[in-house]
Amino acid sequence: MAYLNEHYLKLKSGYLFPEIARRVNVFCQDNPKAAQHLIRCGIGDVTEPLPPAVIGALHQAVDEMSRRETFRGYGPEQGYEFLREAIAQNDYRDRGLEIAADEIFVSDGSKCDCGNILDVLGHQNRIGLMDPVYPVYVDTNVMAGHTAAADESGAYPGLTYLPCGPGNGFVPQPPPERLDIIYLCYPNNPTGAVATREQLSAWVNYASKNQAILLYDAAYEAYITDPEIPHSIYEIPGARECAIEFRSFSKNGGFTGLRCAFTVVPKTLLASTGNGQSSSLHPLWLRRSSTKFNGVSYVVQRAAEALYTADGKTQVRQLIDHYLANASVLREGARAAGLEVFGGVNAPYIWAQAPRGITSWQAFDSILHEANVVITPGAGFGRNGEGFFRVSAFNSRANAEEVARRLQRLKW
Amino acid sequence: MAYLNEHYLKLKSGYLFPEIARRVNVFCQDNPKAAQHLIRCGIGDVTEPLPPAVIGALHQAVDEMSRRETFRGYGPEQGYEFLREAIAQNDYRDRGLEIAADEIFVSDGSKCDCGNILDVLGHQNRIGLMDPVYPVYVDTNVMAGHTAAADESGAYPGLTYLPCGPGNGFVPQPPPERLDIIYLCYPNNPTGAVATREQLSAWVNYASKNQAILLYDAAYEAYITDPEIPHSIYEIPGARECAIEFRSFSKNGGFTGLRCAFTVVPKTLLASTGNGQSSSLHPLWLRRSSTKFNGVSYVVQRAAEALYTADGKTQVRQLIDHYLANASVLREGARAAGLEVFGGVNAPYIWAQAPRGITSWQAFDSILHEANVVITPGAGFGRNGEGFFRVSAFNSRANAEEVARRLQRLKW
Repeated sequence: MAYLNEHYLKLKSGYLFPEIARRVNVFCQDNPKAAQHLIRCGIGDVTEPLPPAVIGALHQAVDEMSRRETFRGYGPEQGYEFLREAIAQNDYRDRGLEIAADEIFVSDGSKCDCGNILDVLGHQNRIGLMDPVYPVYVDTNVMAGHTAAADESGAYPGLTYLPCGPGNGFVPQPPPERLDIIYLCYPNNPTGAVATREQLSAWVNYASKNQAILLYDAAYEAYITDPEIPHSIYEIPGARECAIEFRSFSKNGGFTGLRCAFTVVPKTLLASTGNGQSSSLHPLWLRRSSTKFNGVSYVVQRAAEALYTADGKTQVRQLIDHYLANASVLREGARAAGLEVFGGVNAPYIWAQAPRGITSWQAFDSILHEANVVITPGAGFGRNGEGFFRVSAFNSRANAEEVARRLQRLKW
Repeated sequence: MAYLNEHYLKLKSGYLFPEIARRVNVFCQDNPKAAQHLIRCGIGDVTEPLPPAVIGALHQAVDEMSRRETFRGYGPEQGYEFLREAIAQNDYRDRGLEIAADEIFVSDGSKCDCGNILDVLGHQNRIGLMDPVYPVYVDTNVMAGHTAAADESGAYPGLTYLPCGPGNGFVPQPPPERLDIIYLCYPNNPTGAVATREQLSAWVNYASKNQAILLYDAAYEAYITDPEIPHSIYEIPGARECAIEFRSFSKNGGFTGLRCAFTVVPKTLLASTGNGQSSSLHPLWLRRSSTKFNGVSYVVQRAAEALYTADGKTQVRQLIDHYLANASVLREGARAAGLEVFGGVNAPYIWAQAPRGITSWQAFDSILHEANVVITPGAGFGRNGEGFFRVSAFNSRANAEEVARRLQRLKW
């Protein structure tokens, strides 16, 4: 008899975004007229087209695939050298950071990598993660059998949740207990918070002392405007020995539909066997990539390379500036509506506190029904997200301005 | 202290193809003149450019991504409806097979899916696989902790190897013992063998009786020329209740560098919890896909869709006919060289038996040094591959003809 992986049965059946979609569908069916001017600021998906430099590179790569002499079949599973070199140079060496091209692994998405990284880690690790949290970190640990069934609050025993709120600026301090693997995400999804050099240094020190590993998700790095905020965990001395960094082209180049990201696994990062022998994780991740993956589409890798050209950089800057200006409009609109607002300065997300006594889902329903705007209820990201909601700045300027106006007309 | 997944340390360090590459490099450095006319028939990678229908669809999809009105961000993780519908209609319904579009999962490669499928299966399953075997089936089970360390022959205790050879036409019969998960690959890589309706029926009956699951890898389905040979496991009554099918656009459309494949998980396929409760695997695989994957690039899905147009079908047929004609040339060449030859009729691989007493790697070295041709030693696919070698038909006609000539000049 074939057995299934029972840990999947512990997962809550309704993932956040399907439940949002369900409520939006019901609303649209019941209110066809209002549905016509519905504005979606829920899911964090880009809205602007791909930059011209990317479009040009794609067409050229497609033409190469049409001729026998320039056709490309299987590429290197880790990614083409041309792209890994461009990443190493622009994202790291130009910032004075020592990351070699062969420490970079090109993939089809950060979500995939954040999940797949558990493949090369032991099941006995004690896992820490922020709350509120990107649900993928939690769910992939549940699937891997690292938790018991969820408790009444929706938390999974077996994981250590590090509360984030206005009190700590949404950046947890390292805890007194020993954790082995800690997920950190800055600029943060969903709160839009960033971590300072001092805060990240505290985590690198903690990891060094405990031989722990930081899984550092920097998918929103391009949105950092404050010159004092680190763009990479490797700006912190000692991070090459304790951190894996996840980056994405989704939110800078607008690649959510094209699919390309990368993960940095420094060769100096060690982990341990059960009997205490240290070993580099790099060859394990390389082995995973070459056995369970076949590389990213050649044409997409050429598109990602184009983001690092002079034109590409200018065009990415314009995209980011567009979304950040939206964030500013939304932030001011929410403030003018009397809400306490976080994020939106170094991130494309506004994290707003609903008026006292109103839950996240009540806020969701009010904003949907009264303002005809879709946001994301904070409770969907964990216990400490209760009472908050996320507004995405991925939209047209006109829509951002309209949402700002509608928020101010809300009667809570 | 962070722990690594120790099961990775059981993997043999030299994967087959890196070892081949190493020997080829040494040869080329030592023999620069001979290296100039080296012909590669090793790795199964296509050589011909993408069909014009695909190129046209790619350019059009790229243009869509350049305009705000037609830009696509995140797509459905399971794949766009337009592609899943085209697959369901052309690959299944047109053959009278009941597979719904929502039972199809579009992915970036069959290799990924063959590995990832273990995520939704329990660790207590008894695993059966053919020998010789596509190494990914073995290695992903080692990584998941389903085996002990390899024995001296390279086999992993904990897996049940089903010997394949000339005696059984490279199609194993179901064993007397109970297995829970069985990998079957037809047309077979590496042997080029196909399974008849009767042979597949025996496996479906076995799986039904034992509530086992067949993982049916049909990546080379397009090469079947014999009208009596099933193209899909779902041609066998009862397979919807016991089989998952893996398909790929790599070897029909030439997508090895573009990346697109699909997996069929029928909703009627059940697996069991540890305490004997049956549950459908479909929602688990859907949950895995939406949590650990973000869908295939939109432009690549449009490219795959184009393979199902009238022009696309004609162009794919021409590609397949080209490679199959190469296979025929190689097959006749190897026969004329006095070798016993299998495969190459319904598959792009020739499986040749080296003269008595010559090992696979000796054959590899002889053919490299004397004929300046790269083949794949059969022993790299398992114990029962010893004494055989694989010749890939993915090449130009001129190269295939030259290889056929050179094989005949070999002095063993």
